[in-house]
Amino acid sequence: MHLPEKIEAVVDYLGKIPGVGPKSALRYALILSRWQDEQMDSFSHAIAQLKELELCSECGIFSDHMTCHICSDTNRYEAKTLCVVENVTDCWAIEKGKSYNGIYHILGGVLNPLLGIGPRELKLDKLVDRCRKHSIENIILAINPSVEGDATCSFIRQELPSSMNVERIGFGMPMGGSLEFLDSLTIAKALENRKRMD
Amino acid sequence: MHLPEKIEAVVDYLGKIPGVGPKSALRYALILSRWQDEQMDSFSHAIAQLKELELCSECGIFSDHMTCHICSDTNRYEAKTLCVVENVTDCWAIEKGKSYNGIYHILGGVLNPLLGIGPRELKLDKLVDRCRKHSIENIILAINPSVEGDATCSFIRQELPSSMNVERIGFGMPMGGSLEFLDSLTIAKALENRKRMD
Repeated sequence: MHLPEKIEAVVDYLGKIPGVGPKSALRYALILSRWQDEQMDSFSHAIAQLKELELCSECGIFSDHMTCHICSDTNRYEAKTLCVVENVTDCWAIEKGKSYNGIYHILGGVLNPLLGIGPRELKLDKLVDRCRKHSIENIILAINPSVEGDATCSFIRQELPSSMNVERIGFGMPMGGSLEFLDSLTIAKALENRKRMD
Repeated sequence: MHLPEKIEAVVDYLGKIPGVGPKSALRYALILSRWQDEQMDSFSHAIAQLKELELCSECGIFSDHMTCHICSDTNRYEAKTLCVVENVTDCWAIEKGKSYNGIYHILGGVLNPLLGIGPRELKLDKLVDRCRKHSIENIILAINPSVEGDATCSFIRQELPSSMNVERIGFGMPMGGSLEFLDSLTIAKALENRKRMD
């Protein structure tokens, strides 16, 4: 099938997005081609602007400015609490719940010697510096459960002064879940992490 | 379509099983009809035997005898721990993990005033009696998180002597999960139930 070059170019780029197959890419491109001129201009501009996206120089969250809206909010420092996450998406997931009011630190991954990701690649010294700078007293490790995640948590615990209160998020049964459908490992954690009722 | 009566009868009964549609029922019946005589006899016998299935008179688990294999295992009483679950399937899920070595108590449901399920329907007095009889010291409430489940836990806590250690299983992030895909309620619980790292 011969496609106009202009359509083909858009199809090519859309097809590079994981999850968008060639058929969907063509469908999207045809839909886009029927958009009004201004809409198309705005969309094109929005994509061009993406490269201006910055990472917060403090915590590493995507930000429109040098310092993100969380790091520039002075109230966020009052709790003297810093939450360490793997990725920006984890941070967004926690923010959505509105129950956390401290600051964040994005690692950008976990320690993985096989892939050559060590403490230097994760800039763990920066985490230690930030804790000192903001006199952080509580660290919440919101790192996903996996062999690498567990190792990363232990490493961070060692790097931080022992006077600091370092806690990892709780593992157990998810809310709305049913024991019947849970894996044995989660059940074991839920039994281990049980909570006293008074 | 005219089916032989003998096939039709089997199709009718198979079709009564939730999840088995008329097409599957017919397919299963045709497969069964090609089985060898002894196999068919054994299957027929196995189904007839199902009505002999008893509930353990102690804990309420399905059992081949009056007392189930868990309640008749004297080692299980040593921990002086009783785990309260809603259904038999929850008990099986915990047993699969092999990390629990106490006894069980099957409620058969949770308190639900709208459906007319009160403390009497759940035979909660029997639970209290069993705790006394076996000098239980620790109660683990492995009851699923829901409004009714929470209320049932509070009610059981009140019914039991305050000297007894009553704990509910831990809620938080399931093992192998990723923060990014968790609901806000589970994230809030995981943050609340965090565990100190030493």
